[in-house]
Amino acid sequence: MSIADTPPPPYYAVIFTSIKKEETERYAPMAEKMVELAAKQPGFLGMESARQEVGITVSYWESMYAIKLWKENTEHLVAQKLGKTNWYEDYTVRICLVQREYHL
Amino acid sequence: MSIADTPPPPYYAVIFTSIKKEETERYAPMAEKMVELAAKQPGFLGMESARQEVGITVSYWESMYAIKLWKENTEHLVAQKLGKTNWYEDYTVRICLVQREYHL
Repeated sequence: MSIADTPPPPYYAVIFTSIKKEETERYAPMAEKMVELAAKQPGFLGMESARQEVGITVSYWESMYAIKLWKENTEHLVAQKLGKTNWYEDYTVRICLVQREYHL
Repeated sequence: MSIADTPPPPYYAVIFTSIKKEETERYAPMAEKMVELAAKQPGFLGMESARQEVGITVSYWESMYAIKLWKENTEHLVAQKLGKTNWYEDYTVRICLVQREYHL
């Protein structure tokens, strides 16, 4: 996992912030699989992720339509359902328009 | 650090993704101080942070003007300069308009 090499803005970001439950059987392989799957989606631009007390995963997308397609991906829907019922104590999803970007 | 309790959108997010150098003397107390300072800035709405291979800090703001004021905060300018020269191997800052938000 490194810093996402995104194109010049504008593009979209999905900020997914979560707190996991202690019981998270099957979480790690599913999370890995979702990263692989997302990367194959049309309009995917990159992803960044880290977890300490909270987990933050930011995925970057060409358009709102690309985000919608990923949200409705069949295998992703299964993961979302398991996340809601089994894995997450709490989460927030924020859909953002990236307007400016700068680097070191 | 928990999930930020932000108001209904629209509002702004600054996604700061970084890779630290190995040599990071004075980094931790400065990072803590910046979290405290940011929280006192006008227009601050919340912050989320985690670090593994990459560090991700997302701060939330009422307006672009609030982001500008924070960027120009005198003590923050000192920290930014030290970050550039001493602490970060690489970083990207993305300024975003949060358009939608949903929860567990």
